[in-house]
This record gives sequence, structure tokens and C-alpha cells, in this order.
Amino acid sequence: MTEARGGLPLLAPMSEVAGRMSVQVGAHGLEREQGGSGILLGGVPGVAPAKVVVLGGGVAGTTAARMAVGLEASVTIIDKSLPRLYELDLQFGPRATTLFATTEAIERAVTAADLVIGAVLVPGAAAPKLVSREMVRAMRPGSVLVDIAIDQGGCFETSRPTTHAAPTYLTDGVVHYCVTNMPGAVARTSTLALTNATLPFVLALADRGARAALAADPHLHAGLNIAGGRVAHPAVAEALGMAYEPAATILGE
Amino acid sequence: MTEARGGLPLLAPMSEVAGRMSVQVGAHGLEREQGGSGILLGGVPGVAPAKVVVLGGGVAGTTAARMAVGLEASVTIIDKSLPRLYELDLQFGPRATTLFATTEAIERAVTAADLVIGAVLVPGAAAPKLVSREMVRAMRPGSVLVDIAIDQGGCFETSRPTTHAAPTYLTDGVVHYCVTNMPGAVARTSTLALTNATLPFVLALADRGARAALAADPHLHAGLNIAGGRVAHPAVAEALGMAYEPAATILGE
Amino acid sequence: MTEARGGLPLLAPMSEVAGRMSVQVGAHGLEREQGGSGILLGGVPGVAPAKVVVLGGGVAGTTAARMAVGLEASVTIIDKSLPRLYELDLQFGPRATTLFATTEAIERAVTAADLVIGAVLVPGAAAPKLVSREMVRAMRPGSVLVDIAIDQGGCFETSRPTTHAAPTYLTDGVVHYCVTNMPGAVARTSTLALTNATLPFVLALADRGARAALAADPHLHAGLNIAGGRVAHPAVAEALGMAYEPAATILGE
Amino acid sequence: MTEARGGLPLLAPMSEVAGRMSVQVGAHGLEREQGGSGILLGGVPGVAPAKVVVLGGGVAGTTAARMAVGLEASVTIIDKSLPRLYELDLQFGPRATTLFATTEAIERAVTAADLVIGAVLVPGAAAPKLVSREMVRAMRPGSVLVDIAIDQGGCFETSRPTTHAAPTYLTDGVVHYCVTNMPGAVARTSTLALTNATLPFVLALADRGARAALAADPHLHAGLNIAGGRVAHPAVAEALGMAYEPAATILGE
Amino acid sequence: MTEARGGLPLLAPMSEVAGRMSVQVGAHGLEREQGGSGILLGGVPGVAPAKVVVLGGGVAGTTAARMAVGLEASVTIIDKSLPRLYELDLQFGPRATTLFATTEAIERAVTAADLVIGAVLVPGAAAPKLVSREMVRAMRPGSVLVDIAIDQGGCFETSRPTTHAAPTYLTDGVVHYCVTNMPGAVARTSTLALTNATLPFVLALADRGARAALAADPHLHAGLNIAGGRVAHPAVAEALGMAYEPAATILGE
Amino acid sequence: MTEARGGLPLLAPMSEVAGRMSVQVGAHGLEREQGGSGILLGGVPGVAPAKVVVLGGGVAGTTAARMAVGLEASVTIIDKSLPRLYELDLQFGPRATTLFATTEAIERAVTAADLVIGAVLVPGAAAPKLVSREMVRAMRPGSVLVDIAIDQGGCFETSRPTTHAAPTYLTDGVVHYCVTNMPGAVARTSTLALTNATLPFVLALADRGARAALAADPHLHAGLNIAGGRVAHPAVAEALGMAYEPAATILGE
Repeated sequence: MTEARGGLPLLAPMSEVAGRMSVQVGAHGLEREQGGSGILLGGVPGVAPAKVVVLGGGVAGTTAARMAVGLEASVTIIDKSLPRLYELDLQFGPRATTLFATTEAIERAVTAADLVIGAVLVPGAAAPKLVSREMVRAMRPGSVLVDIAIDQGGCFETSRPTTHAAPTYLTDGVVHYCVTNMPGAVARTSTLALTNATLPFVLALADRGARAALAADPHLHAGLNIAGGRVAHPAVAEALGMAYEPAATILGE
Repeated sequence: MTEARGGLPLLAPMSEVAGRMSVQVGAHGLEREQGGSGILLGGVPGVAPAKVVVLGGGVAGTTAARMAVGLEASVTIIDKSLPRLYELDLQFGPRATTLFATTEAIERAVTAADLVIGAVLVPGAAAPKLVSREMVRAMRPGSVLVDIAIDQGGCFETSRPTTHAAPTYLTDGVVHYCVTNMPGAVARTSTLALTNATLPFVLALADRGARAALAADPHLHAGLNIAGGRVAHPAVAEALGMAYEPAATILGE
Repeated sequence: MTEARGGLPLLAPMSEVAGRMSVQVGAHGLEREQGGSGILLGGVPGVAPAKVVVLGGGVAGTTAARMAVGLEASVTIIDKSLPRLYELDLQFGPRATTLFATTEAIERAVTAADLVIGAVLVPGAAAPKLVSREMVRAMRPGSVLVDIAIDQGGCFETSRPTTHAAPTYLTDGVVHYCVTNMPGAVARTSTLALTNATLPFVLALADRGARAALAADPHLHAGLNIAGGRVAHPAVAEALGMAYEPAATILGE
Repeated sequence: MTEARGGLPLLAPMSEVAGRMSVQVGAHGLEREQGGSGILLGGVPGVAPAKVVVLGGGVAGTTAARMAVGLEASVTIIDKSLPRLYELDLQFGPRATTLFATTEAIERAVTAADLVIGAVLVPGAAAPKLVSREMVRAMRPGSVLVDIAIDQGGCFETSRPTTHAAPTYLTDGVVHYCVTNMPGAVARTSTLALTNATLPFVLALADRGARAALAADPHLHAGLNIAGGRVAHPAVAEALGMAYEPAATILGE
Repeated sequence: MTEARGGLPLLAPMSEVAGRMSVQVGAHGLEREQGGSGILLGGVPGVAPAKVVVLGGGVAGTTAARMAVGLEASVTIIDKSLPRLYELDLQFGPRATTLFATTEAIERAVTAADLVIGAVLVPGAAAPKLVSREMVRAMRPGSVLVDIAIDQGGCFETSRPTTHAAPTYLTDGVVHYCVTNMPGAVARTSTLALTNATLPFVLALADRGARAALAADPHLHAGLNIAGGRVAHPAVAEALGMAYEPAATILGE
Repeated sequence: MTEARGGLPLLAPMSEVAGRMSVQVGAHGLEREQGGSGILLGGVPGVAPAKVVVLGGGVAGTTAARMAVGLEASVTIIDKSLPRLYELDLQFGPRATTLFATTEAIERAVTAADLVIGAVLVPGAAAPKLVSREMVRAMRPGSVLVDIAIDQGGCFETSRPTTHAAPTYLTDGVVHYCVTNMPGAVARTSTLALTNATLPFVLALADRGARAALAADPHLHAGLNIAGGRVAHPAVAEALGMAYEPAATILGE
């Protein structure tokens, strides 16, 4: 679904949950027992903090950066939109560095990082593979990757889906956290967040039936991805290799 | 050891590490997979954050409170020193609540909390049991206790030492994290911190020999706890049930 | 009047004034002499602050929340727009809690509050009665309600208009502040604010005459509520029980 | 009473309460209905804020400055201790101006101020009259003076004690708030604060009797002002024009 | 060029650079050796800071204000858009004052200022002369003017272009810094900023050729100012006294 | 002179001035025209900020760090006192990194820095040479060194005194700013600061004569360095290679 300000109302709460969780699972992954390098995110007085790199400055990435700054890590946010970087710079000031997303900037930042959070979400499409296997190999052993985009295929080349029961694995000495459905770990908060986000739509669907509700609410309408086996979202269609048809066509409008 | 400003130079870095770690292990303990209630420390927009109570406003407690505030939890700090509470109020302003440590205040705060961090460290003495078994029973299932004072016996009545391999256990449905030597989990940061703190003393001991170094440096001298089987620290003596003798007597000064 | 970014240029300064004033009159109402509970908004070190609940996260509510945070109260903001709550969460971080406006959330927050500020302004329409008489009865005696929306009928069921000469009254032991024209108390600031906001429109009206100015400036045009006894604003029409006619019709355009 | 860090344990909580209250009563005094100039402390966007001058950077003055900054006024703090001004500068940064207390600086700041808070408390002695009648006459009509030091005689030449029932009066067009026992207005908070501060002393007195408790606790001992009609505090003696005798003499120690 | 959010993608980075530089060159200009009054922007504890006035609250002005606040000066921002002033007030709170741009407000602020930064940029048009020669004469000798708008003719009546080799001159005792191409002084940062901003457009032009690229990208299209000696931007046309023709006409679309 | 809290009352204001100035002269030195690398201290959105290293966390160093953070540089503070680093960490949180002063830490930080501020002041003694010629050679060309300690001989091996007329020189491609009497550049602010600091002592000397004033005020007494050609300060004596005599001896007390 879309909304007037261009966001995705149902995705946003889950991005907020995942963004916040990414830092706490990353801090946990850095502990020795998890295979991590044994570095504390915020350091202590006299000892430098860990370097955290956040790929993507959307809702998930911004939230992750806030939490990493809150734990007093040294934080860098990389995005390809200059207007967005301007907003982030305004928000974080001296507490985080913003970098324009060139291949070189990503490579330099990632290979020097203790914790990389992949937060590049393209609605409905496969996430771009921003971090290659070579970059992962160049990282220090015990560093940690958290892939928030794993549900769209992941944004690290070395990512493969994991579960809350076995959340991490080591590849080239680097800890990978790639749990699909990250918000499940904090089910109480996530459920409330999702209820808040969906209640208006649920009420509309219950009141009017699906077709009428879709016709009446352009946000619901725009949120229609698949109906009767036909794909109504261009990015989904491209990712699945299927033909795209406008929702209006599918609904016979 | 003591130092001019009344702190403990060797204990301070470990308190800083444990204080910072306490929040990340607490956040982890709140995850469903760990037996926690599934609440996210900072909540999300529209969903209330978790309630974090920090017992003790010394180095460990203050650092813990900073991290909990950094993750945007709702934080309360309890201490029995009004001057210290004044400093904490100045430091945190509207971002944390300070409470004077009465039995009633502790009970009300703990039983309403999602995460309680016990940071009451009395140098060389057994930690006071601020949280009784009854209070623990009155907490919501899935809440979390982190006992930073476990090395001095713990400040929760239900605490018993655990290890990094099996860091938590459930008592009355409440997750207990009571790992002795918490800083071991972030060995890289801890080692650097400890090296910074001890280097001057080590150099003095190496240069002069123990007795001369003790005579020359009143901080080292005050740090002498046990020598030749005799106890030179009053609180240690009391805790061990042994006789106390001044260091000067033991050293034959 | 509307403006490009969807706000109301003339209402905004008055909302800013009322939002700021609401906290200082609320703090005053909590004093014993006014019938209040004798609680200090920010508490002091060791004593918990007052709980302030702000209903509505628009200009007035956000400004009220800023002031309440500035006085170091414990602040909760309730709004029904998730995108707005996201912005407020970004702005306030750990200094305020944001809650999604469900009936249950409002009831729980209001009945536990020391000060409730009603800042739900629907341009031109009667304010919704978010707080019922039952909720007011369930509040602690000496708590305070400030109704910024009183000019649109008020958002508490127990509100009735008051004046600067007798600004408060007690209902069920709860102090009500429902002064219409709150900005009049700070006339110097309000006059300057209003002058700043109206000057461009005044100049346009003076230069061109009313009809020509309305034709030339879509903001002025949209600001036309009543002309020649006919109502040109749908919400005003609904509130007055009159027929709505588009401004263009009334003006014979 | 004194304490190790040089403060006054029983005075501090009352100073904190009075410091916080001074800003809310000052904001109230600036309202038109109270005779004030009708200026809003924080201004609004596009309209300058009020100028607040705080005389004295101790506990009361610092707390007052925090609240005035919290309401977004333009704040200046004047003190005669450079080390204290350094600390205040560190704490407030660009949010407040610190000035060294010369006669000229006080005069210039006070006569340009909208609100002056007198927070110069000399324990046990009469407060210095920092603001003369001439300065008050030079202020803009409708400006406000709040005299926190009224219990020690006040720090404005034009101050005379008032009550919560009639808290203000006008002299030369300037609103004076000089309520003795300011904390009484927020009795609930004040009582809790005082209980926290006195409980340890009360318990000691109850346990041992007055004389023994005084002998055992140097803080209590130093707090003894008058015993058997003889004055044991030099500043009190000077203020009352009586002879001073050391507490030890009076107690026959 | 324009972009979706109404900004100018290529101008923005240069405005950010110039805004940040304006404060450091202003601080430098205030040094005695440069003819300045010898005032330190942030003052020191006990000595008041300098007064900085920023004309214009766009990207350059906002950035300048941030830096001046960062150096702890007393900062006032003047703009003619109330919605923009609202955002600035939200961003800066008590750390800066916002004023609505009336002639009187500008005159009063400028003549009392130690440093005035002219940051009024109207894309493609001559900058308005907000500060007259009379105002400059009324300033204290040794005060400093920095004209960021010098490339559009300057916003001070007394401005004339200077170079990095001889960046300042004195008029009526006031230091003027009017270097065209300010970003050249920090070429390393500026080049990177410009590369980030232009790369996407350069790639598009290289890929498709100019005409096709202009047709495909409305931002590029809107950025077309002059083509074949004809002027496609209304403000540029007005400033040059030439006829304006829509880009579509010039391109034969 | 010394004071109760261990500081130097007359040195402190000059350290505050020099600390603040060090950042603005450092930013200026980084401009191309001055031989600098052309990097902007705070970077811009998408371009990384400059790396600033402050050697020494006393008054001058802390103030310098505040200003560098204010301009949004990436700031590291190095000090050899862990308690001081703890305070700095509390003050700056995620906005600056604190490092314990080992030779290795200094070397690594300095050779990677764009701007190094030497703020290591040992009262009365020659400043330690913390940065060797080799380290300077290893820095990037166009980087800048600012030596606040130049009045005590400087803390960079390559420092030699300069003047406000010719403040910088290049050694090994690195810009050196080593102006003695830095505060002279902002004479207006410095004079006020010094007047504030000296007034009480001046009044005492004028009232009583030098010998009586020295006898009455232990701070003045401790401030006596040289009297009648004899040296009364141990560190001064050592630096000058002269014999030290206690002030009491010299004064014939």
C-alpha cells in the first residue's frame, strides 16, 4: 500500500521494528560467544567505539542509525539520495556521518566496519546486492552483518535466510544475522504496531467488501499486488518474471 | 584501589563495560526466543516503550541508564544519595526519572518494570539484596533482571551466577541474566580498557618492586586487600568474617 | 485559509500561542491555590515528575508537548496518524512517548494523567469529544484539563467556556481551564504573530479589493468561509447545519 | 546543615522547587490579567522570545535557568564565580548566556529584561540587594520580578513578602512575586522532596536523642543555628545582631 | 535545475558549502588583524557572545545558523516565510531566535549585529538588497558582513565582488567578505559534493545526448536556462532584460 | 595562581579563548589560500567531515573539542587521565571519541588527522613534545597543526612561534599555526575575560599592598612565581634551570 506522503503504511511499522532490532542483534553478534570480535558498540572512555555502517537512509536505516547513535557507536549512513542525506545530516549533526552511495564509498566503509546493517528496501522488488562476497572477505574476522532486507532476497551477496532459533552463521569469519521476520522476536511490540497500522484498512474491508473498499480507497488500491493470479505491481512483476497488469484492468474497472 | 576523587580506578572501566552491556543483554533477554515478553526497548511510534529501572546511580548504573535512554526506553534511576540524584537529573533532564531509594519506591518501580538492572556496587562488600523474591514474583512474566553486582553476591534475592555459555535462567517466569565477568563477552574492548587503567600501576610495580611501590603510591597502598593471608580492607574483612588489620601493620610500616 | 503545505496560515500562529500557553496555565492550575493537586510539572531530583498527556499532534499539540518536555514533565502524545507519530517520535526521541489514538489508549492515559491538554483542532468543524465525563470522574482530584479546542466546542465532555478573569472551574474535583481566546493573555506576542501572518493578505486585499484579491490568491479563496450569508466551507456548513456552496458559486465565478 | 560537598542538604530540595516554580509564576505574571506585559516566554516562530535574567547560578538559579530554557526564552545567568560560570557555560552552551556579576552588567541586563529571577541565596545571611529601586523604575512596565530570596529578606530593593493568596503586587508598573514559602504551592512534590532529604537525619535524632545525634554527625552539628536562645551560626548572628558562640560552646562540648 | 521537493539539486551542495564557510570566514573577519572588532563568536564564560544575524532561512542560511549555533554565538534568523520559520523554530528551539522579515526587524537586527550573513538566494534572479548603505553605516565599526548571494549581485547595498586572494574590504568601518565562488576555498570538499550531485545528470547526458536527456528528465529540462542565445528561465530573463521563452519552445518540442 | 578546585584562575579565561580560537584558525588554515588541503571541517551531506584530533582534555582542549563538534567535524580527544576521559565521554557522548594517551594512539590519530590541536598545558613547565617531526612528515600535505601550548614551548616538535601578522608557515607540507598570545586576535573578548578574572585580585592588591595581599590570600601567594630575581615556583625553576625557593622564604615570612 502507498500513502499520500509516499511511504508504505503497512511496511513502515515493520521497518521501524527491524531498524531498532538490527542494532541490538548486531551488538549481540559482536559478543565473543556469538563468534564476534568482542568489541562493545559504544566503547568506553579511552577506548574507541565500534564502527557501524548503515546502508540505506529510509525508515529502517534511519531508525537503525538512531539506535546505534544512542549506544554511542561511530555511525555512517550511506544513501543515494542527496535530499535524503541533507535531512539526515540535519537530524544527526555531528553524531553521524552521511555518505553518498558510490561503489567506492560503500566498499571503503564496509571493509572498515565492525557492524554493517543492510537496510535497502525497494518496495516489492528484489533488494540490490550492495555488498559483494569480496567485500565480506575483506572485513575483519568477527565483524557482523545484519540483513534487514533478507525478506526481499537480502542486500549482501553472502546472505541466506535464518531463523530466530539459529539466527546467525559465519561466512569468511564474518557473523551473518539474516533472520526473516525479524519483528517476530518482539512479538508484543510488533503486534501492537501492526494493529495500529492495519485497523483502518481492516475496518474498511469489513464494512464494504474487498472490491468496494479497493475502489474507494486509493491507498488500498495501490497496495494490491496480486489478484486472481495476476500481478498488479510493476516491481513485483519484474522480480517474479511475470507480466504486469494495472490493478484497474484486473479488477475490471 | 582508591584514587583522589574517591573512585576505584580499576573497577571503573569494568563498571563502564558492564553498565553498557547490561542494556544490550537486557534487550536480548526480552526477545521471545530467550523467554522474554517480546517487548522492544524503545517501542515504535504509536506503541509505548519498555520500562527500564536502574538500581544505583554510580558509574555502572549511570552508564546503563545512558544506553537505555539511547535506545529510547522509559528509564527510571533509583539511588539513595540526593546529591547524586541532583547530578543525574541535571544530566538526563526529561529523558529519565530519578527516584529516591525508599523500599516503597523500589517495590513499585521494580514490579512495573520490563527490565531491571541491578547496579549497586559497594566496593569489597556483599551487594545489598534490594529486590526480594516476592517482588520478582510480582513482576510480569517475561520481564528481565540483569544483575551487574553478581560478582559481589548479586542484588536480587533470586540471583545465582551464570556463564556466557548459558547466560540466563527463568525464575517465576522472569528472565535472570547473572553472568559473572560480564566484560569477558566484549574481550577486545575490555582488555584495552583494563590496560589503560593498569598500565601506570604495572609500570610502578615493575620499576620499584611491590613494597616500595606500595610505600610510594597511596592509591596502590589503599588498594591492598590481602597480603600474607591477612586482610587489609575493612569491608573485605567483614564480608569474609576475618579480622581486619591496617595495611601499614601488615607491611610492617 | 489554506496554504501549499496544507496548513492554515492564520490559525497556525494562534495554535502556536495556545500550545505554549497551555502548559504554563496547566502548571499554574496544578498549584494548591487553584484547586490543583500541588504537583510540580518537572518534579525534583528523587521525586517523579507529573504525567502530561497531549491529545493531538498538530501545531498546538506539538508545541504544547515541547513546552511540557522543556519543563521536564513525563509527556505522552496521542494522535491518530501514524506518519505524524513517526515524525513526533523522531523529534522527541526518549523525551516523550507517542501513542496511537485508540479509545482504550486515550482512556488509560487520561485517567492516569496529572495534566491533560486537549489540542484536537479540526479546521472549521466541532472538535470531537475525546474525553468523556466518566473519564474525568476517574481522574485523581486536583488533576488539570486544558481545552485548547474550546473555540470549536471543546474536546472534553465537561468543558464549558471560561474567561481570563475566571479561567478555571472544578468539575468532579478536576480543574478545567477552558478560556476562549487564550492568546489574549499574551496580547503583545499574539498581536505580533497575527500581524506577521496577515500582513501579506491585508496588503493584497487593500491593493485589489476583496473580489479581485480572492480571485488572484487561491489561499485567500480557500479561506472564504461565509459570504453574503452563504457558507463556502463544507465543515463549517456541517457544523452550522446549513447548506454548503462552493466559493466559486457564491462569488459568481 | 552542611554536607561534604559544601551544599545544604535541607535547603537544596527547596531551592530546586523554588527554582522550577519561579519560571512558571514568572510566565503567569507576564499575562495581561496579572498586570504583565502580555509577552509569551518563548515567543512564537517569527516573534522574539522574552528576555529572562537569572541572578545567581546556584541550585535555585540553575534550575530556574533550565526551566526558562525549556520554555525557549532568551536566558542570561549572572554569577560572581568564574568557575561556576564555566560549568554553566558547559551545561547550557548556546542556549543561555553567562555574565560575570559586575554592577554594570546587572544593571544593563535587568533593565532590558522581561523577567528577572532573584536566586541569590547566602545560607543564613540576609540576601544582598542586587537590584535597586532605580533599576526597577528603569524596567519596561509589565515586566516581572520573582524574588526567590524573599525568605532571607529578598534581593530586590522593592521586594516585600506576599502570600499564595495574593502573590503579586505592582511597584513602578513592575509585577513583583515575593511569596514566602514558595514550595507550599506544590505541596505534594515539596513534601516528598523534604521527606527524602530529612529522613536520614530524623531517624538519627529519633534513635539517639538530639545531643548525641549532634555529637555523632558533623552535618547535623553544623546545622545547629540556635540552641537555648544562643546563636551558633556566624551569619545568622550577624543578621540578627546577636553574639555568635560556637555550637561546641553552647552544647558544653 | 529543480527537483521534486522544490529545491535545486546542483545549487544545494554549493549552498551547503557556502553556508558553512560563511561562519568561519565571519569569525576570521572579526579578528583584529582583519580589521574586525576583536570579538569572539561564542564569547567565554562570563563574557557575552557575538550577535549573528542570518538573512534567509533556506539551505545556505540554515546551514550558516547551525554553524553559528555550533560556535555558541547568539543567533537570529530572519525569513519572510512563516511556515519556514516554524520549521526553523522546531529545529533550533532555544538556541536561535526566528524573526519575520519586516523592514523594521531587519534594520534593528542588522544594526545591533556583530556578524551579518546574507543568504537570500532567489534562483536565477538578482538578490534583493536587504541591507542599505545607511544600515551599514549604523553598524558598530569592526562588525562583519558576509554576502553569500554575491554571485547574484549581493544582498547588501555596499557589496562588491572580491577574491580569495583579497577576500575582504572595509566600508564605513565594516568588514565586507564578498568572495565569488566561496566553495573554491575548500575545493576538496566542494568537488566531492558537486560530483555527487551531478553524476546522475552527467551519466544521463552522456548516455542519451542533450536533447534526448532533456526530454526524458523533467529536472534537467527545468534546469535549462539558456539555449541557442534564448532564455528559458523567467527570472533569468527578467534579470538580463531579455525575452523569456519556454524551454519547450526553444527546443522545438 | 591556584584556586581551591585546582585550576588556575588567570590562565582559565585565556585557555577558554585560545581553545575556541584554535578551531576557527584551524578551519581557516585548511582553506586552499592558506596552503591547506581545502577540506571543510564539517563536510556536507554526502561528503565526510574533517578529522580533528585534540591533544589534552583540560579547559583549552575541552573548549576546542566543543567548537569542533559545533562545526560538526569528526572529533577525537586524547588525554592521559581516565577520570577526565570519563567526564568527557559523559559530556560528548556519540559526538566525540575519547582515547587514552598512549604513544601508539597519538601517532595513529595524528597521522590520520586533518587538523590537530595541541592543548597540553602544564602550568609553568615546558609543554611535552607529543608530536614528533616524523609524525608531522607522515601527515597528509595540507593538514593543519594549531599549537595552543606555544607559549610554553609548544607541543609539536616542529613548532616555532609566529605572530598574528604572519600566523602560519609550512613544514613538510603541513600548515603550522603557532601564534603566541592567541587571545590578542580577539582583544575585546579577551580583555573582558581577563578583567573579570583579575578584578578581585587587583582590588586586593590595591587595598593592602602586595606583601599584605600575598599574606592574606593563599591563591595570590601560590601565584607568586618570581620575586626579586628569585624563583618561587618549582616548575618555573626547573624550566629556567634556576634554584627554587619557597615563596615564604623569599618574602621573609
